[in-house]
Amino acid sequence: MPALQELKDKYKWISSFSSALELLHWDMETHMPKKGGKWRAEIIGVLSEFIQSQQTSGEMGKLIYEAEKEAKSDIDKALVRVAKRDYERARRVPPELWGKFALETAKAQRVWEEAREKSDFSLFAPQLEKVVDIVKEIAERVGYEKNRYDALLDYFEPGLTVEDLDNIIPKLQEFLTGVLERIERSEKPKDVFIGEFDLEKQRELSRRVLEVIGYDFDAGRIDRSAHPFTITISHGDIRVTTRYDVHDLKYSFFSTVHEGGHALYEQGIPEDMRGLPIGDGASMGIHESQSRFWENIVARSHSFWKFFKPVLEEYFEVFKGVSSEDLWRSSNIVERSLIRTESDEVTYNLHIMIRYEIEKSLINDEMKVSDIPQMWNKLMEKYMGITPLNDKEGALQDIHWSHGSFGYFPSYMMGNLYAAQIYDALKRDVDFSSVVELGDFEEILSWLREKIHAKGRVLEPKQLLENVTGESLNVEHFMGYIREKFSKVYEIEF
Amino acid sequence: MPALQELKDKYKWISSFSSALELLHWDMETHMPKKGGKWRAEIIGVLSEFIQSQQTSGEMGKLIYEAEKEAKSDIDKALVRVAKRDYERARRVPPELWGKFALETAKAQRVWEEAREKSDFSLFAPQLEKVVDIVKEIAERVGYEKNRYDALLDYFEPGLTVEDLDNIIPKLQEFLTGVLERIERSEKPKDVFIGEFDLEKQRELSRRVLEVIGYDFDAGRIDRSAHPFTITISHGDIRVTTRYDVHDLKYSFFSTVHEGGHALYEQGIPEDMRGLPIGDGASMGIHESQSRFWENIVARSHSFWKFFKPVLEEYFEVFKGVSSEDLWRSSNIVERSLIRTESDEVTYNLHIMIRYEIEKSLINDEMKVSDIPQMWNKLMEKYMGITPLNDKEGALQDIHWSHGSFGYFPSYMMGNLYAAQIYDALKRDVDFSSVVELGDFEEILSWLREKIHAKGRVLEPKQLLENVTGESLNVEHFMGYIREKFSKVYEIEF
Repeated sequence: MPALQELKDKYKWISSFSSALELLHWDMETHMPKKGGKWRAEIIGVLSEFIQSQQTSGEMGKLIYEAEKEAKSDIDKALVRVAKRDYERARRVPPELWGKFALETAKAQRVWEEAREKSDFSLFAPQLEKVVDIVKEIAERVGYEKNRYDALLDYFEPGLTVEDLDNIIPKLQEFLTGVLERIERSEKPKDVFIGEFDLEKQRELSRRVLEVIGYDFDAGRIDRSAHPFTITISHGDIRVTTRYDVHDLKYSFFSTVHEGGHALYEQGIPEDMRGLPIGDGASMGIHESQSRFWENIVARSHSFWKFFKPVLEEYFEVFKGVSSEDLWRSSNIVERSLIRTESDEVTYNLHIMIRYEIEKSLINDEMKVSDIPQMWNKLMEKYMGITPLNDKEGALQDIHWSHGSFGYFPSYMMGNLYAAQIYDALKRDVDFSSVVELGDFEEILSWLREKIHAKGRVLEPKQLLENVTGESLNVEHFMGYIREKFSKVYEIEF
Repeated sequence: MPALQELKDKYKWISSFSSALELLHWDMETHMPKKGGKWRAEIIGVLSEFIQSQQTSGEMGKLIYEAEKEAKSDIDKALVRVAKRDYERARRVPPELWGKFALETAKAQRVWEEAREKSDFSLFAPQLEKVVDIVKEIAERVGYEKNRYDALLDYFEPGLTVEDLDNIIPKLQEFLTGVLERIERSEKPKDVFIGEFDLEKQRELSRRVLEVIGYDFDAGRIDRSAHPFTITISHGDIRVTTRYDVHDLKYSFFSTVHEGGHALYEQGIPEDMRGLPIGDGASMGIHESQSRFWENIVARSHSFWKFFKPVLEEYFEVFKGVSSEDLWRSSNIVERSLIRTESDEVTYNLHIMIRYEIEKSLINDEMKVSDIPQMWNKLMEKYMGITPLNDKEGALQDIHWSHGSFGYFPSYMMGNLYAAQIYDALKRDVDFSSVVELGDFEEILSWLREKIHAKGRVLEPKQLLENVTGESLNVEHFMGYIREKFSKVYEIEF
């Protein structure tokens, strides 16, 4: 058998174990009984280690290098390129170091939970320090050209560098801080999504809005979990979760659409790429661009609420007395906020920048873990003009660092920037406001499917963005989008 | 490391994959979206084959034989005995034959579904013939002392033989057919469980009755599926499913208690046996004894309905006008029936005998597959006094043969016989009627836990039964139980 075919078969074989692992995760967050937790952790550990050992075996390396000689088509070449990249990165880190990483991050999660409970960063700091040391060693092993942090960014957003980010951030920060100041001087819209909303009705509404945007329930389902997520069990089985707040309808609604955006991407990955390293989203940032596109650009638009108001009324009669304009304005309330996950389109990226500055300094030995709260508060004051009262609503709010996920946050920001740039490109082909106002999302989805979803992980994110939009990353699209939208929402001029 | 410890570690490692496989099955029957089916079958295939190859590797054999020399405690000796038995049986059948078995039974299931739809056994016969040929070859490879069918019985009920069954069946058949005739001459009780029963309320009632008998919802859950089943994902995670019929409350109620009986057994397996070959039920028949015990002996007793009537009324007010006696009688309606799964305590074993006679003849080349429907109808007429109108309600009603599960049916019968014998032993220690009437099932469950559940698969079923009841299998217990119960239900004397 040719090595290329053997390689594909091997990946598909391994992907069966990955599917099982994903299901174990999904079930743990949605259905597993309490007492299954101890064993579940062990089971997940065994399967993760097995999958990793299969993906990074010497035999796998041999197959990849053999297959490289055979690959002729663009797709096959991409497959080998992605496979080789993943393989070589993984092999540069010795298994013992991964073992240490797994052990110390597992501990860190428990310590973080306790420290967060007590709102005391100093309880978390010693364990986080261990994690940061391991992450730095991983970065050194993986290698980089200019900045140690680049090695970590590359995990989540291949090709993204500190140089790229440092080129964007100051300008963007200044712009957003300025927008925030202007908005603050205007009157804050009333939030019509606050009230009392039956959970069963919210559940039905979540299903409905997913159906509306084109999510295929024959190839997925929605469940409830503490934190919303999207997960691909296999082709034809892409699931989302959400959570419900009886007093705030916005929460379940927008997080459902957000996860729906991720899920539409996954449901659009071609079946023949599945199980292969190319059968995935192009990057974390591109993935996030899809969720943000549907959540913010579609579902927070005035056109959307013109269409969706009567649908909403089917579930909650209270909205009969509310205009589509009120719904739209309520979806776009901007506030200086302490918590990233509750922030809006203007402040979200500012939250990311704070984390980015801290991570970059930590990884480059320019800052100590114990200094994080101080730095956090300083940056928060500088960018957002407010200071957390305690560590719980400050440096302890995110779980990511306890997972050792350094380099992850910037991909959220990239998602926002990509989404706006993709939006401008889409508007050249699709009469966006008209189709959204009609609730006809088919044209939008088809466009995204063809340009982005169908490509899987064949192209690097930078290349994909250029192919889709005709230019490389340009932050003007996002700034223009923010300017236009919020000048209308708040009736001001920028 | 000593081989015994290495063997245990290896089994526990493999059991993580088995847990994943069980979860894949559970999810397929309860939650999986339609379009996930094609990939799910493949994923399950890959994991099954992997687990089998791990369990039967030469390395595993070496470990078992090494560990055999080290095993000192009774538990360790049992572990090695069971491991060796499973291993040697599996190794006697070459992988290619298992491959053929998997392939032809997968086909047979599809053909069976179609034949059943069309109620035409002749459509199923050619494919079933292939399956029977493979099963005969497997039996030959596995080996037996006296009867080829013994090799198959041994898969489900270790130690059970044709000789054992032929000793029991004629007497039991004559007895049951006689009881059936006597009952038929009496007046049939009115079925108070027929009506209109809200499904949400049925769901709540199912949860309630499981709680009542001692099922631990922190270590399990109940879901809906087309066919009720119990599944062990891991220690601390034992799940049941049921199905609901809006017009017949009996269905969900008794099938829930039945699965609850299986689940109580599994929840009682000690944690330190988990993942090892001894960390399981003793046999299919012993497992079935536990489900039948709770379903029939407990939940179909007069004492139970004295206790449970007020609970039932909390869910369905209609039962306020019904006596506990009516509930009890309605739980015990006996009828000449064509369908095994809908049959009662008197006719159930007669259904099994029909299948047993046919299987034994087929496997011993005393009958052709194409003659099954004729034989089926003949035996049905002889034992039950009625004849199916078509194959769908005759020889095509069960899925088991399409799975290649020959030798399985008798374990259902053994479950009934064991349950009655265990019941008599239990009554020597526990004041059964009194505790059931009080709804205090703790004493019963503790007794079963100590005598049966805590033993896992350490003892052979014959030995376990003797330890628990003080004698070997004695069909008089079951006949005495039937005689006593149905003489009261139908107010007749036998």
